[in-house]
Amino acid sequence: MLINQLPGLNYSFKKPEHLHLALTHRSYGPVNNERLEFLGDAIVGMVVADILFQLHPKFSEGALTRLRSAVVRGETLADIAIKLDLSPYLRIGNDAKNSGARRRRSILGDTLEAVFAAVYLDGGYLEVVRVITELTGETIANLPDIESLKDPKSRLQEWLQSRGREVPEYQLVSESGASHAREFTVECRLVDADVSYIATASSRRKAQQAAAVQMLDHLSKV
Amino acid sequence: MLINQLPGLNYSFKKPEHLHLALTHRSYGPVNNERLEFLGDAIVGMVVADILFQLHPKFSEGALTRLRSAVVRGETLADIAIKLDLSPYLRIGNDAKNSGARRRRSILGDTLEAVFAAVYLDGGYLEVVRVITELTGETIANLPDIESLKDPKSRLQEWLQSRGREVPEYQLVSESGASHAREFTVECRLVDADVSYIATASSRRKAQQAAAVQMLDHLSKV
Repeated sequence: MLINQLPGLNYSFKKPEHLHLALTHRSYGPVNNERLEFLGDAIVGMVVADILFQLHPKFSEGALTRLRSAVVRGETLADIAIKLDLSPYLRIGNDAKNSGARRRRSILGDTLEAVFAAVYLDGGYLEVVRVITELTGETIANLPDIESLKDPKSRLQEWLQSRGREVPEYQLVSESGASHAREFTVECRLVDADVSYIATASSRRKAQQAAAVQMLDHLSKV
Repeated sequence: MLINQLPGLNYSFKKPEHLHLALTHRSYGPVNNERLEFLGDAIVGMVVADILFQLHPKFSEGALTRLRSAVVRGETLADIAIKLDLSPYLRIGNDAKNSGARRRRSILGDTLEAVFAAVYLDGGYLEVVRVITELTGETIANLPDIESLKDPKSRLQEWLQSRGREVPEYQLVSESGASHAREFTVECRLVDADVSYIATASSRRKAQQAAAVQMLDHLSKV
């Protein structure tokens, strides 16, 4: 008989087949949870975006993006799946069952996404919002300080400003390559000290960030 | 007075402020549509995932992923924004107003995402599903043949099979680098001909795809 509930999941399926399919890994056979995983990944991305948007009305889109990545990445979803004790309910082939811990964690995170899609298909949008809100609540409440999630350029600027120092200058040193494979070389320079670092990347922004990382590293050592 | 409707958008805002904010580009001032764009990007990603999931019950998650990318990428959203004639309603700084066509297209696509978020906040999930379904309908109906969206490895396999030839072999040649910066070198070899190509990438799968691209390129020339 098919089950219509999981112990840690506060939702009863009207159609147990939805849950059944969500728990079936591709190693089990051709009818599996991969399509549900595709849908569930999009669902959890949107629901967590909405939760964070409402929770932090003053945060920039950059801060929201970083917070969301911390919640929806595979590692975090795997942790939630383990807390839910999803593992004994997985329908999985023997090869996958005996694979290493890292692969098993990744399968658990993917399965949780498929379960979210199953709740959505079975109960609708508001039900999946409720379920995801409950399951991610602890993670969202314990997100690392937004500082540590900031991009290097912002961190460098704030590090300097908090010490009464001038903000750094970024200068494009060179630009090369065909239009689809452009390379940007950028210099990050401290205005009030004779220190500069140079980095190259596929966009001006990425090169600036990479140069800022080196500068932060330098400053943390002097 | 604030408007509560756009000519091409089949939705009337209860709170015109939602629409107003969605149409305000960051070049206009510090209160702008960037947070809405973050939310709208997630919304359109999920809604289009759901539409395609329902529309193509036999498609693999790989095919669904490729189709979705074709719908939600900036270029496509910009086209929809242009059809909607969003441009005259944008609140935008003079610098951005006078920027090149490419940047203006990108601003239009981003603004459309913000408008989706505004509809969601103003009218709820079902309303934004209706609006996105209407606006993306033509694009979704005219998506390129799923073949041309397939990944190189699949295309190579089907190219060979359709000619009665053996499927290629992929072999891991080497694996190096620290765990966070691993590099995989993979060889793609034709079993029935003395041809092989080698590629290196950050995952085994990516290296296989890169080697398959070279093989497809070779086969297209012989």
